[in-house]
Amino acid sequence: MPAFERHVFVCHNNRPADAPRRSCTADGKSELHTRLNQLAKEAGLGNRVRINKSGCLDQCEHGPMVVVYPEAVWYSNVRSEDAEAIVAEHLVGGRPVERLRLADECVNTKICPHRS
Amino acid sequence: MPAFERHVFVCHNNRPADAPRRSCTADGKSELHTRLNQLAKEAGLGNRVRINKSGCLDQCEHGPMVVVYPEAVWYSNVRSEDAEAIVAEHLVGGRPVERLRLADECVNTKICPHRS
Repeated sequence: MPAFERHVFVCHNNRPADAPRRSCTADGKSELHTRLNQLAKEAGLGNRVRINKSGCLDQCEHGPMVVVYPEAVWYSNVRSEDAEAIVAEHLVGGRPVERLRLADECVNTKICPHRS
Repeated sequence: MPAFERHVFVCHNNRPADAPRRSCTADGKSELHTRLNQLAKEAGLGNRVRINKSGCLDQCEHGPMVVVYPEAVWYSNVRSEDAEAIVAEHLVGGRPVERLRLADECVNTKICPHRS
């Protein structure tokens, strides 16, 4: 079955500046998404990996957020400069980038050191 | 780890009326997404399942598209009336809704009976 080997979702949510929760993008555009896409194509992953835009992934306090399926690897505070490591180490090499992973105790919880 | 038991992505892409590929929504709004969200909450899945908005999932000819991770179950031609079956049978019952599944040979391919 020619489904995606990995499906990467990059949050594009943006809220008004005075919103209580943080936004993953300032204006709904993501240089991180563009860069991941470009690097994945350059690495020959074109049809095997999809770099997708997503709406809010509900981990806002840790954004900009990225989640990679089917493994459900959550990356937090991701910047466009991190795209290279994600593509080379994870999407090509198969090893998640540990330094970018959101701590297990911070995923999908209302109480963690980063949420007030 | 309190990650999502299931993460449902509902395509919200919309293109100009004369675009060569189809759009999954007419105006970037999805009654299907709203309905899935509402029914998942009513079923008590609030914190265990996330109904997400996504950008283009690149299966446009079969849209409106939905993909459910971590199983990577792809649903095609999904209408808001189908939300009930997806929530009751799949998200609650754990059995994908076979009648809505995109045929394996149509997932992520440039040649299938529905693409010209």
